[in-house]
Amino acid sequence: MKIELAALYCVFACSSNVVDAFGVAPTTRLPMVRGGSSSLPMAKTSTEEKKDAKEEEKKKEAPPTNLGWNSHKAVEQIPDSLVRDGESGPEGNYPMRAKFEKMCREAQIKITKAIEEIDGSGVTFQEDCWVRENGGGGLSRVMSGGKVFEKAGVNLSVVYGSMPQEALAAATERGIDRGKGVKPGERVPFFACGLSSVMHPKNPMCPTMHFNYRYFETDGGVWWFGGGTDITPSYVDEDDMKHFHGTYKEVCDKHDPEFYDNFKSWADRYFVIQHRNETRGLGGIFFDDLNDRDPDTIFEFSKESLYSVVDAYGPIINKHKDDAFTDEQKQWQLVRRGRYVEFNLVYDRGTVFGLKTGGRIESILMSLPEQASWLYDFHPEEGTPEGDLIDACKFPRTWV
Amino acid sequence: MKIELAALYCVFACSSNVVDAFGVAPTTRLPMVRGGSSSLPMAKTSTEEKKDAKEEEKKKEAPPTNLGWNSHKAVEQIPDSLVRDGESGPEGNYPMRAKFEKMCREAQIKITKAIEEIDGSGVTFQEDCWVRENGGGGLSRVMSGGKVFEKAGVNLSVVYGSMPQEALAAATERGIDRGKGVKPGERVPFFACGLSSVMHPKNPMCPTMHFNYRYFETDGGVWWFGGGTDITPSYVDEDDMKHFHGTYKEVCDKHDPEFYDNFKSWADRYFVIQHRNETRGLGGIFFDDLNDRDPDTIFEFSKESLYSVVDAYGPIINKHKDDAFTDEQKQWQLVRRGRYVEFNLVYDRGTVFGLKTGGRIESILMSLPEQASWLYDFHPEEGTPEGDLIDACKFPRTWV
Repeated sequence: MKIELAALYCVFACSSNVVDAFGVAPTTRLPMVRGGSSSLPMAKTSTEEKKDAKEEEKKKEAPPTNLGWNSHKAVEQIPDSLVRDGESGPEGNYPMRAKFEKMCREAQIKITKAIEEIDGSGVTFQEDCWVRENGGGGLSRVMSGGKVFEKAGVNLSVVYGSMPQEALAAATERGIDRGKGVKPGERVPFFACGLSSVMHPKNPMCPTMHFNYRYFETDGGVWWFGGGTDITPSYVDEDDMKHFHGTYKEVCDKHDPEFYDNFKSWADRYFVIQHRNETRGLGGIFFDDLNDRDPDTIFEFSKESLYSVVDAYGPIINKHKDDAFTDEQKQWQLVRRGRYVEFNLVYDRGTVFGLKTGGRIESILMSLPEQASWLYDFHPEEGTPEGDLIDACKFPRTWV
Repeated sequence: MKIELAALYCVFACSSNVVDAFGVAPTTRLPMVRGGSSSLPMAKTSTEEKKDAKEEEKKKEAPPTNLGWNSHKAVEQIPDSLVRDGESGPEGNYPMRAKFEKMCREAQIKITKAIEEIDGSGVTFQEDCWVRENGGGGLSRVMSGGKVFEKAGVNLSVVYGSMPQEALAAATERGIDRGKGVKPGERVPFFACGLSSVMHPKNPMCPTMHFNYRYFETDGGVWWFGGGTDITPSYVDEDDMKHFHGTYKEVCDKHDPEFYDNFKSWADRYFVIQHRNETRGLGGIFFDDLNDRDPDTIFEFSKESLYSVVDAYGPIINKHKDDAFTDEQKQWQLVRRGRYVEFNLVYDRGTVFGLKTGGRIESILMSLPEQASWLYDFHPEEGTPEGDLIDACKFPRTWV
């Protein structure tokens, strides 16, 4: 059963890339698997040569090298809401759709403003907005080339999609019928809204930080919340970790004494680079499938967690942004960034799902660092600061 | 049916990482999916604290953060053969097992020697050898920090594994019963041997090159060959492409007039970064499931293809290794390397399969470049040399 839970991650982008990493409506779904029947354009040949009927035939059989993906339409004017008209009214759970989006947009502004201030270079976030044909869209804010931050992005996503009932059923242990209101065999229409972010600072003493908060609802009225914030340093600074985890423990404790322990463990289990037997970073909190209390109560918890990002992360960056470092320490940071790439591209269900279902690539891969490095068979020695980080990734520690 | 062919790639590592990217015997197979039942070591807590029974329970349910993977035993002394004793004799197809391994080992030495000469820095390939408990193992030769090459690796792999019959059946259109000699429902024991390589030069005018040649055989005596060589430049140099593709066309034509066209198209279909609608590079040849003629005849074709790597690639590197380049051109190369990482980690069946089945990580990820970069929403303009490369990746060209 636990194993099937994995499907949940696939279904509902649970990590860095909730942004635009949901399924799209089946009508706009693309052939993903090599071996489809679209034709393969072979244009502009440098040496135009005999093409016989057989070759033409071969081309017809070829899989789609060029997917005609155009469901993301960039818009100049940012709409007040990406939620469909009529979904902020009083019927059903709809008010939560608009309410969650509004909260995310406010948080997006607050967080990016705080990051610009910490960066202090005058470089600001670049804003991109897009809409999708059948509703929803995204609002991406990305900063590149700051003084403190190599790359930082905060992305809002509103998705109207659908998914098979089995996928939904496998994704919960709560015994809830997520296919409520939908005939057997039919896909379940859903709404999802999320805010997600990755911040990659330049200084190797400054950790990378990621968060993602989301609200999910089927058209049959089944709903749940998910989210989390986690931190990925290149070096262990125990005080930093006490502060980061402590901030989230405080938020959690206000809402439920069991939240922090549960969600801290969940993060340690989720952010694992399985082929290396190590976690991506030093964790934080992670939760999903949360609907065991009143939606407004969980909304408040999500909101407070999201609004605590700056408190949890900002002081750590301010403390380290001017730290001295060696070339070797920078190289170590790049190696750790390589690991970040490995996790996101191989294991992060949101990323993989988004890439394979035609999400907006630039938003999904915004999570990748500007620079990453892979060295052959490089293993830091035990007892070194680098070795200590590896140890903390192999054996998750208790910080508060 | 075409779609199911994809399974073949999964089953039989078809790209850069045939090296050690095969399944291992089921007895040593690890729980791969998050949510297993192994316990999660929570060692060396900085603040050792109250651990109640509930937390212990939670740990038991936790997925394996730390897989106890130890099936790769490094050996100092390189054995003469990684093929099991008695498999080089005259019975069955066994002679091909030893024959193919011998050919690969000779090619490995020849190719790495040629690369060292081209590099000219005196830096040599580092050799790592390992064996596996139930037979097989690998011999990895990797060069880092050369003058011309940032990273170059040539890996030999010999694998004894097993796989489900359905996977095998889905992987062929030839109507062959690959489960021959095995009871319904039982896994099919197989042997595989391959040589694979990736070379990443430093100069952005020098293309990256990859090859992989392999022989596969079930214990029931069903066998086939696969392989290919492909090139990934950051800039289009038509003469280079004529030379590279021309070399392989010549090799192909000697064996079958249809080989080049078929295998060139196959490469264009296989090396696709689907989420970007572009190929990884400018192709080459790629074939799999080849057993439509005498094994010794196909062996000769594989051998000649493999031995042509230096002829096809060497002159291009010698021509460009001292080319002048700008910082912008170097940055463009790093962006293309990011794409290389995307293909290998997301789509390359060999890599993904290897990572998830406990292959030797360092050998599998040897294919990744030392440095890679991701820039947000960066798209070269049409009509620029960078734009021309993108065009050639979106619309595969005919070179010879």
